[in-house]
Amino acid sequence: MSTAEHTARTAGQPVGTAGEDGVLAALAGLLPSSRAALVGTGDDCAVLRAPDGRYCVTTDVLVEDRHFRTAWSTGHDVGRRAAAQNLADVAAMGARPVALVVALVVPPTTALSWVTDLASGLAAACEPVGAGVVGGDLSGGDHLVIAVTAHGDLEGRAPVLRSGARPGDLLVHAGTLGLSAAGLALLDAGAVTPRGPLPDEVRRAVEVFLAPQPPLEAGPALAEAGATAMMDVSDSLLRDAGRIAASSAVAIDLAEPTDPASATAVDLAALEPAARLLGAQDPRALARHWVLTGGEDHGMLAAVPPGARDQLPPGCRVIGRVLPAGPHGPRVTVEGVLPGHTGWDHFAA
Amino acid sequence: MSTAEHTARTAGQPVGTAGEDGVLAALAGLLPSSRAALVGTGDDCAVLRAPDGRYCVTTDVLVEDRHFRTAWSTGHDVGRRAAAQNLADVAAMGARPVALVVALVVPPTTALSWVTDLASGLAAACEPVGAGVVGGDLSGGDHLVIAVTAHGDLEGRAPVLRSGARPGDLLVHAGTLGLSAAGLALLDAGAVTPRGPLPDEVRRAVEVFLAPQPPLEAGPALAEAGATAMMDVSDSLLRDAGRIAASSAVAIDLAEPTDPASATAVDLAALEPAARLLGAQDPRALARHWVLTGGEDHGMLAAVPPGARDQLPPGCRVIGRVLPAGPHGPRVTVEGVLPGHTGWDHFAA
Repeated sequence: MSTAEHTARTAGQPVGTAGEDGVLAALAGLLPSSRAALVGTGDDCAVLRAPDGRYCVTTDVLVEDRHFRTAWSTGHDVGRRAAAQNLADVAAMGARPVALVVALVVPPTTALSWVTDLASGLAAACEPVGAGVVGGDLSGGDHLVIAVTAHGDLEGRAPVLRSGARPGDLLVHAGTLGLSAAGLALLDAGAVTPRGPLPDEVRRAVEVFLAPQPPLEAGPALAEAGATAMMDVSDSLLRDAGRIAASSAVAIDLAEPTDPASATAVDLAALEPAARLLGAQDPRALARHWVLTGGEDHGMLAAVPPGARDQLPPGCRVIGRVLPAGPHGPRVTVEGVLPGHTGWDHFAA
Repeated sequence: MSTAEHTARTAGQPVGTAGEDGVLAALAGLLPSSRAALVGTGDDCAVLRAPDGRYCVTTDVLVEDRHFRTAWSTGHDVGRRAAAQNLADVAAMGARPVALVVALVVPPTTALSWVTDLASGLAAACEPVGAGVVGGDLSGGDHLVIAVTAHGDLEGRAPVLRSGARPGDLLVHAGTLGLSAAGLALLDAGAVTPRGPLPDEVRRAVEVFLAPQPPLEAGPALAEAGATAMMDVSDSLLRDAGRIAASSAVAIDLAEPTDPASATAVDLAALEPAARLLGAQDPRALARHWVLTGGEDHGMLAAVPPGARDQLPPGCRVIGRVLPAGPHGPRVTVEGVLPGHTGWDHFAA
């Protein structure tokens, strides 16, 4: 029986019936291999190439009913999301992602097809950047947990840390802002159903919430363009800009999204339909809130020297500037005004 | 307030009250850094040195009430165990462990002190081999989950795979066999209480179950000695020897532990007190069962050329031999006899 036949025959059965070997057999062939792998899956470790004698590593975990709900997200969505947020961390160092390992906790009652969908989602996120899945572990448990560790190749470049921003630098961003938060708000309010027909004007928000698509190419490109500091926006623009400010001992002033001339006016405009669909009293204010405090779009946020303005990589726009820290120390302002809201805590309600 | 003062004041509080930043503050200073780290914790990725242009990577996950119970294991035990089983995978490639990243899922009601104990356990397992913790992620959840990814340096050696064993090789083992299974059986039967006084003759079994101490030095040493195949014994001697046999297309014949002249007679003897304490009708038979089918001691199991017999690293003993596969294909026998039992499945009851 071929792997494909085996998968087709067993997809409907629960993981607990398939057993560990059955799950691994179903996954075989679904996960992309890595061009960096000297030894791939199937031994105690994978062995990966590090051509310049260094490698980047990061880990991020997704927990059922904390980071995703199976009522909203397919296995494919969760796989794409788990991979994407780790790949974004690699890209935000200025590195090219090469390989993932995946630790997976699955309740025995989960359909085997959910796990194969997860694998196809991991593959969908990895393949465009040439990354592969080189190892993993599988366990039973009461809730789904997906812990991904991602590895990257700096290709001879210096890693771009959070700590290198200098007064005078431009703050640039590639990717979307606030769409994930808007998508979550729409689903949470029942304003849309994830697998039903989505209104065109809010489709992207729901899609980005379910499976972000970070502009991974922008990470290495911004490093090549001379980025002095970089990170991906996981928690929120305000909070993550604040991390660059604190690490670099600088102040950061962001453009005001409600200013039609600002680079984030386009993000605001993309979010207003979702705010209206939610019946917000002031859709513009809610959209502004999402731009500044929404996390998990995983765009690239970087400081670049002012001379780089005319050679920014595709998709990068200037959304603020880096200033001396001043008497109040490192902080983030929006057109000179201190914002009230700074993101969220993983343990908050 | 210093980190130590902060930790002392907040250790009793639940993680949910401390918040993510509070937990991270309490962990600061508890986790060892890695000599291989060019960039450590606190950025999007760690950056690690790979002096010979390659690195090993493996991941393993521990789930509360599947792999450990908080009634039995302290946070320190779980940290040591989570690190040790990953470090063993690295050593079993013939590599020296250099760095871990740790994804941690913690219920909000967990005491902060449990998490700091976990960190001290990770440190205790890492420090003897000079490995460090270079990154992590923290999430809330309903059950404790610890996913560790470990990295190793091959130091110029070829990785030792499972697939290189050749007929004529000796099968060697370093470490203990069956102690973890015996420790679990003792705890499970209520024959001992983990934090009460342990009878001397079974102390080691309970300790190894709670926190295995794999002979990590033996991995690189066996690679230097010319090991043709190697893995750590995670599932059981029979099952893991079977993996080497299958990967290498050979047969493996193990010494009979009940033969007083065999190298595993000492393992049998170490296990008989536990079998007696459990009131087994045939303590010798139960001890033999643990030697052959007990997992999670994480010793090093390797095939070495016969000429290496007199230069085996400390702690390594010959426990079997590698034979041609024969008409029945790759398989494992015990003094020529097929065993009935081959380990366990993660989804079995």
